[in-house]
Amino acid sequence: MTELKNDTLLRALLRQPTDYTPIWIMRQAGRYLPEYRKVRSQAGDFMSLCQNPELACEVTLQPLRRFALDAAILFSDILTIPDAMGRGLYFSEGEGPRFERPVRSPADISALAVPDMGSDLRYVTDAVSLIRRELDGKVPLIGFSGSPWTLATYMVEGGSSKNFSRTKAMLVEESAAAHQLLSVLADSVVEYLNAQIAAGAQAIMVFDTWGGALSPALYQEFSLNYMTRIVDNLTREADGRTVPIVLFTKNAGPRLAQMADSGCDALGVDWTTDLQDARLYTGDRVALQGNLDPALLAAGPEVIKAEAEKVLSSYGDGPGHVFNLGHGITPDINPDHLGVLVEHVHRASQRAG
Amino acid sequence: MTELKNDTLLRALLRQPTDYTPIWIMRQAGRYLPEYRKVRSQAGDFMSLCQNPELACEVTLQPLRRFALDAAILFSDILTIPDAMGRGLYFSEGEGPRFERPVRSPADISALAVPDMGSDLRYVTDAVSLIRRELDGKVPLIGFSGSPWTLATYMVEGGSSKNFSRTKAMLVEESAAAHQLLSVLADSVVEYLNAQIAAGAQAIMVFDTWGGALSPALYQEFSLNYMTRIVDNLTREADGRTVPIVLFTKNAGPRLAQMADSGCDALGVDWTTDLQDARLYTGDRVALQGNLDPALLAAGPEVIKAEAEKVLSSYGDGPGHVFNLGHGITPDINPDHLGVLVEHVHRASQRAG
Repeated sequence: MTELKNDTLLRALLRQPTDYTPIWIMRQAGRYLPEYRKVRSQAGDFMSLCQNPELACEVTLQPLRRFALDAAILFSDILTIPDAMGRGLYFSEGEGPRFERPVRSPADISALAVPDMGSDLRYVTDAVSLIRRELDGKVPLIGFSGSPWTLATYMVEGGSSKNFSRTKAMLVEESAAAHQLLSVLADSVVEYLNAQIAAGAQAIMVFDTWGGALSPALYQEFSLNYMTRIVDNLTREADGRTVPIVLFTKNAGPRLAQMADSGCDALGVDWTTDLQDARLYTGDRVALQGNLDPALLAAGPEVIKAEAEKVLSSYGDGPGHVFNLGHGITPDINPDHLGVLVEHVHRASQRAG
Repeated sequence: MTELKNDTLLRALLRQPTDYTPIWIMRQAGRYLPEYRKVRSQAGDFMSLCQNPELACEVTLQPLRRFALDAAILFSDILTIPDAMGRGLYFSEGEGPRFERPVRSPADISALAVPDMGSDLRYVTDAVSLIRRELDGKVPLIGFSGSPWTLATYMVEGGSSKNFSRTKAMLVEESAAAHQLLSVLADSVVEYLNAQIAAGAQAIMVFDTWGGALSPALYQEFSLNYMTRIVDNLTREADGRTVPIVLFTKNAGPRLAQMADSGCDALGVDWTTDLQDARLYTGDRVALQGNLDPALLAAGPEVIKAEAEKVLSSYGDGPGHVFNLGHGITPDINPDHLGVLVEHVHRASQRAG
């Protein structure tokens, strides 16, 4: 493998010293970029884009041509696993992701099996290999998956949900079935992420988008326990380097303390928790990734710079900070604003010496 | 005034001993009740229902005829103040509340004035007087308002919002204008709630639905500071009794600590924070109201009872707990399930002796 020229992200995720604070952005390959929208319209629907390794590679690399980002992240969808389980993922205009065949009964759950990585999800590992080759060691490549709980909500509700009523009712009324569902999902995520690592992913992120909707007790039992199982079973070394694992639960707040017990290397933090408080909650056992409010990228350059500095100083001294937004960049943002952010984070975080 | 026969809620909100844990439910007058849907369809649109004191009184009392709730809460909308400021509130199917004339510029903000309570919002105080008379001392009546920050988001965005981009950009780019807007809203809320208290409201709740979307620093500056100003300026006694004030920020998490400094008597807590942790954050300085996940009311009676007991025991010993959901009851819930909850909370929380 080509030597990695910029390992700042990997070092920061392992709490090793770096020359500056590395930055990447959730959804950095996305609709705010005109060149993305062009490829997206050529591909047809969204899943056709995800399932075409050449196009997935192209959109993954697009933001790196514009900005001095310190990582690439695989362009894909969080719902590839349930789709590969035969639930029929599709995207309906204005409604987001939907499943043709939601999972509603214990019989539905018993029929689920871990997808075959070499066939059903081959398009993902092919994309990883291709992106890794095209990156040519410029920056590391992050692989990812949705968390078991987050995948389960879409499978049970049949799509996006405001209250997760069906899924939550399953947790308390049919908890054995719920555990069976989460278990097959956790096993699938382990195989999926290990396949991504084998294909070239150099860091891993697990997106637990909806974990914050659970009470702390249900969160521990039905979300965090399964993420911990994933952490326990991932390949932790590739090319002679540690593969850092980042967990991200939106609205985690003080649950960051429990999350730091999972054995992961780093936690994503959204803007509703100060990084200073997050360091207290986690006792500085893990690196932290975040946490500018993406809505503030709509402001002008001077405000963006000032707000970026507030994030840097809220983390404070010492290694272990990766700059990011607290959630994905939104389609309405002017790409030049992201350029201002990336450049300023690099400049303002230069270590003396 | 008629003597109050059941003062359990008022006592609990002031952390005084009670014979059992009182319970009321956010949106207890609402679409899950067939008798509500009937009145609602007679009234025409939603605002016509709010603006008709007789009908608002009728739907306020409906849940008390079914369930042994320990409080009534005024039936109204949180957006009555911006509507009375001339912004043209309307409800569009599937989109929720909208304003015909959003507030977009410093000039728009400078033109805003505190509405006249005796004319523009008379329909609200008339409803309060009527409900209070009809209640005849059965249980106390809670009055309410949206928080300044929450009202501001609807006024600036023109309706509901996912990211509050415009409002947040205003906070950081035009903070003087934002403070001016929040200031006139806070003054309006003070007059509005004092008018409700004068008309008969015996406890007050301020709903800061969207405060949890702000970073801790912006939350303090643009939401909590204005709620504190409201607490400082409300009439705190009526009919020889203290009028307790409850603040509720959804997703408050550890911010409950800051909120307890506001001088309020009680805090609403959603299900994402354990009541035990909420007591730690607030140092037992305030009463706590919550916090069953409303989605769990879709489960069967035995699960509802078990989950209610978990909430009671997470609060633990000592006075100062008011049972509630962590957010409003949803239209899909079978009213009988709420009956199970109310009865079980009363039974399971009976104090020995």
